[in-house]
Amino acid sequence: MTGLPPAASPPPALADRAAELADAALTGDRRALARLLTAVENRTPLAEAALRRLYPQAGRAHVVGITGPPGAGKSTLVAALIAEVRASGRPVAVIAVDPSSPITGGALLGDRVRMQSYAGDRDVFIRSMASRGHAGGLASTSGAAAAVLDAAGFDLILVETVGTGQSEVEVAAAADTTVVLEAPEMGDEVQAIKAGLLEVADLVVVNKGDRPGAQRTAAQLRAMLVAAAPRSARGEGSDARPRPKRPEVLVTTASTGAGVPELLAALDRYRLAAPDGPAPAARLARAEAQVWAILGDRLRDRLHEPARRAATAETVAAVADHQLDPYAAADRLLQVLGGRRSDG
Amino acid sequence: MTGLPPAASPPPALADRAAELADAALTGDRRALARLLTAVENRTPLAEAALRRLYPQAGRAHVVGITGPPGAGKSTLVAALIAEVRASGRPVAVIAVDPSSPITGGALLGDRVRMQSYAGDRDVFIRSMASRGHAGGLASTSGAAAAVLDAAGFDLILVETVGTGQSEVEVAAAADTTVVLEAPEMGDEVQAIKAGLLEVADLVVVNKGDRPGAQRTAAQLRAMLVAAAPRSARGEGSDARPRPKRPEVLVTTASTGAGVPELLAALDRYRLAAPDGPAPAARLARAEAQVWAILGDRLRDRLHEPARRAATAETVAAVADHQLDPYAAADRLLQVLGGRRSDG
Repeated sequence: MTGLPPAASPPPALADRAAELADAALTGDRRALARLLTAVENRTPLAEAALRRLYPQAGRAHVVGITGPPGAGKSTLVAALIAEVRASGRPVAVIAVDPSSPITGGALLGDRVRMQSYAGDRDVFIRSMASRGHAGGLASTSGAAAAVLDAAGFDLILVETVGTGQSEVEVAAAADTTVVLEAPEMGDEVQAIKAGLLEVADLVVVNKGDRPGAQRTAAQLRAMLVAAAPRSARGEGSDARPRPKRPEVLVTTASTGAGVPELLAALDRYRLAAPDGPAPAARLARAEAQVWAILGDRLRDRLHEPARRAATAETVAAVADHQLDPYAAADRLLQVLGGRRSDG
Repeated sequence: MTGLPPAASPPPALADRAAELADAALTGDRRALARLLTAVENRTPLAEAALRRLYPQAGRAHVVGITGPPGAGKSTLVAALIAEVRASGRPVAVIAVDPSSPITGGALLGDRVRMQSYAGDRDVFIRSMASRGHAGGLASTSGAAAAVLDAAGFDLILVETVGTGQSEVEVAAAADTTVVLEAPEMGDEVQAIKAGLLEVADLVVVNKGDRPGAQRTAAQLRAMLVAAAPRSARGEGSDARPRPKRPEVLVTTASTGAGVPELLAALDRYRLAAPDGPAPAARLARAEAQVWAILGDRLRDRLHEPARRAATAETVAAVADHQLDPYAAADRLLQVLGGRRSDG
């Protein structure tokens, strides 16, 4: 099928400002990068216009999602990875999706402080981003932020997030390679979570390798992955990324750096396995997740535009009063949006 | 504004089956309830048709979301709450949103096994639901499941989920009252998570109260909540629920039952504070979150219908190839859906 209409262009003044900012970001101007990422986080029209210009330049970076349950040591591992990458002279960017709220201003973690030692290093860019309070927000924001950093020449981008529920699925969808971190023996409930996390893992890392039980945990995880293998070759549903092969399980001690060179080597193997970028199926899944998240943002904005606000509010109120069921309400909103209803 | 078109009716045969199932569920038929919840989980047309019939009967239950980081003891607390509620002769239903994957079949937790002792008790209904692998899925599924149990006469419904990222926001949006569980001293990273969780809390419970540090953790949490109070009166964005007042902080030891009667009493106070159901603003926010989640499901389905599949795939492929940026792609998909584009 061809002949899709072209995308609308932004207004000229906005386009000029966006072009200026985008071009500055492309030269590695850190202030421009920081401003652009703030715009991305706030979903402004400037961010969109700039991304429209930057996006064709992106696609070369290796985007690595790093997720895992709280307490597994993700921030410490990210700090150790930065040190390892910089020792080899390569640039690296980090997007830390901070689950702390705007209310408290965000807890400052020890590792974040440690990362400030890279403040004078042009080849390290670290950015904390708040996860937006609605589903899908994380995927659109972190995906767009990664595209900006990718276009700006960072060829390794680490996206760190706490994940035990939906969020790691979103992050995995926006990453080329997903590293799932585990700590040794975190109790029954974590066992259950592991299963969900392992579904999205390309690499599994048991951190805190100096603790008793680390090797045993790694062995258990390998066994789980072998058991899961027949059905993990291809996930179900549009969010599930096809996984090329069974994930490797590594052991690290991020606090001492033990195992970190091996982890970086493994990441580089994943990239070398796909010298032209990630496999087509993974790239498609990633693109779809991103587009989907933005589509959700668009619809949300549209339903709150002045022309639709009253109808939206009336429909929601009818559901709140139990006069209308939420499925019928969703269909009404589709009509309010100008879409046609499906019969069935 | 009036004159919104009526919701489309389901086909007669489906409507008949749905009516039969819904009516059986209303009489408390457990097999009908179980079948209905399976239909809800699988998002079938039968579930929608049944919910259309049940929804007007719902709205009386107190839906309590119970969330918190892994290891805080949510399942044990839920088990203790069930025992406490049953001791007073009241019925109770539990929806446990299980983050474990379909791949491993779900880890069976000790507490889940313990809950099976209620298998013969008609006034206890416990249901595990897998969280769907896409953003928003949790809100639509758990909200619809709560509505079914509500209509069936369960006037206290506990929705248990692991939450550290997006998922607790979704669950909170679908609950009247949200209980956030914490364990004493779970380390730095958990501090950061706490901030995010506290935003959605009506009640904060420090569990494992027999451990050293429990009272100190409770005192710290109270201090955090006082500090956060000025801005927590009203959240920002459409998902954030307005909170009536600063959350109470309680201490429990779920494994022994200590503090659990006080927790139930606090929950009942929350309900008594709103004898006609939750505050209008909270009900609206809950309705909006539910409708929004279903709308997302609808659009996802529509974009994969035969008539649109090719255009959707072409658009996503263009993004994957970096020939089209994801914002422009989202606008194209809106056109594919039959919507009008917004200029700006």
